Amino acid sequence: MNPTNPNFAGEVRKSFAQQAMMHLIGAQLSLVEPGHVEITLPYRRDLTQQNGYLHAGIVTTIADTACGYAAYTLMPAGTGVLSVEFKVNLLRPAAGETFLSRAEVIKAGKTLTVVRADVFALTGDKRVLVATMQATIMCIRKVSEARP
Amino acid sequence: MNPTNPNFAGEVRKSFAQQAMMHLIGAQLSLVEPGHVEITLPYRRDLTQQNGYLHAGIVTTIADTACGYAAYTLMPAGTGVLSVEFKVNLLRPAAGETFLSRAEVIKAGKTLTVVRADVFALTGDKRVLVATMQATIMCIRKVSEARP
Amino acid sequence: MNPTNPNFAGEVRKSFAQQAMMHLIGAQLSLVEPGHVEITLPYRRDLTQQNGYLHAGIVTTIADTACGYAAYTLMPAGTGVLSVEFKVNLLRPAAGETFLSRAEVIKAGKTLTVVRADVFALTGDKRVLVATMQATIMCIRKVSEARP
Amino acid sequence: MNPTNPNFAGEVRKSFAQQAMMHLIGAQLSLVEPGHVEITLPYRRDLTQQNGYLHAGIVTTIADTACGYAAYTLMPAGTGVLSVEFKVNLLRPAAGETFLSRAEVIKAGKTLTVVRADVFALTGDKRVLVATMQATIMCIRKVSEARP
Repeated sequence: MNPTNPNFAGEVRKSFAQQAMMHLIGAQLSLVEPGHVEITLPYRRDLTQQNGYLHAGIVTTIADTACGYAAYTLMPAGTGVLSVEFKVNLLRPAAGETFLSRAEVIKAGKTLTVVRADVFALTGDKRVLVATMQATIMCIRKVSEARP
Repeated sequence: MNPTNPNFAGEVRKSFAQQAMMHLIGAQLSLVEPGHVEITLPYRRDLTQQNGYLHAGIVTTIADTACGYAAYTLMPAGTGVLSVEFKVNLLRPAAGETFLSRAEVIKAGKTLTVVRADVFALTGDKRVLVATMQATIMCIRKVSEARP
Repeated sequence: MNPTNPNFAGEVRKSFAQQAMMHLIGAQLSLVEPGHVEITLPYRRDLTQQNGYLHAGIVTTIADTACGYAAYTLMPAGTGVLSVEFKVNLLRPAAGETFLSRAEVIKAGKTLTVVRADVFALTGDKRVLVATMQATIMCIRKVSEARP
Repeated sequence: MNPTNPNFAGEVRKSFAQQAMMHLIGAQLSLVEPGHVEITLPYRRDLTQQNGYLHAGIVTTIADTACGYAAYTLMPAGTGVLSVEFKVNLLRPAAGETFLSRAEVIKAGKTLTVVRADVFALTGDKRVLVATMQATIMCIRKVSEARP
């Protein structure tokens, strides 16, 4: 996939740094390539649900953010990015030392881009798929522009 | 809808209190009725995405948690609750002073329960629908039980 | 909801009549109002899955078509309509004499419209909800225009 | 993936043959392997929507059927299969001579199995991805058993 914005990685890193939520939970942008973004999140007890697993909302947070930026790598300079919708299947308890969200663009469009993200739980050498997302992301012409 | 567990509200409140994530973000359980649960979340700057709106992952977190507990109100005593999958449409920027997630059971089953949640942004007297979720929730017989 | 195209009902009926698939399965447009469309389908043995229930694909067909046209009632004259994505929860076996798909717009936008459809099975006086859909529909400026 | 039913392919073929809907639209079961099923459908004018493309409901029909049977290949003998829910992203106009739906199991469980299906439009040597589905399929112990 060919990015139209030569500075796509810088734009993604800048926008990610502006997401206060990423700081709160300790998520890091670990890979930015055309149509492909990865986010890493160490396990923390304060991010869990009632059984001590990573909350489905946090699994979704790193999946959604990775999807949005994977789409954004392919968008023209000067545009913004919005999540239109996503669907998540939670496959196994989100138990691990670290979580990796890996998003890849399936179809890039002028207005809408469809992205898939897999979230893995990493423990030592072991890697287990815990969730998978299918998302629709929208390119907006100006960040001030109203929603779809 | 008729709860089979007379202590359904106590069970929901106990489980909610065990969700470390709810404490982290400042979410509160504001209503627990049979098949109907509401969660309230005040806006906080550290829960936002790059444009200062509530992060879609947090919108999802309070929608998913409300869906899970709305289903749980109708489950027998001694069971546990798991999110199988959900789909969220993000309708408008999540801008407001407070956010309200309201979940209602559409179809309760022995194993699977389907729930819908609407998330509203509240500002003064104004109330705007910002997202809607359709979720599948599973009843598990023992909390130790493996995933689906 | 206020239609911008005074001839919205005529446009929906004309487009519906061009859907060869609706003829094949015997579906009828039974209501067209601003933001609200209903489709009726009599049960037929050749529309079933392996247990004799209406096939989930046919349940989806009438839900998707109703969603698309519910969105279309609110679009400007001279535009076209496309389904971007949908999610369906199948709640009960689709057993009945007739099926009714009722779609209502949740949020109308310039480009994207979010619609919900419920599909009911009707048998005598009884009416049972068998499926529910949450869909994203797109307005295209010219029918010849490429996809999103 | 290891099938527990040595006659999995025979069971899938038998059930497929009982789907009246597959006969109506002319769909064929073109591959049955453990956790992997393909269905082929030649284009027909009477399966189209208003612009002459394959109707999204038919795209969904072959995706859902492939997902259900991909899950079924891994289920024990004497069980039945039901679609719980699915989400479809429609990526490009469904224009082609033949359509191929390819479903692969992502996670097989005792009760729930998560499956992904891609639908391709084939024209001469060209193959284009037109839709992708993420589905939850349920194993039922007896075919007579009520829904989830």
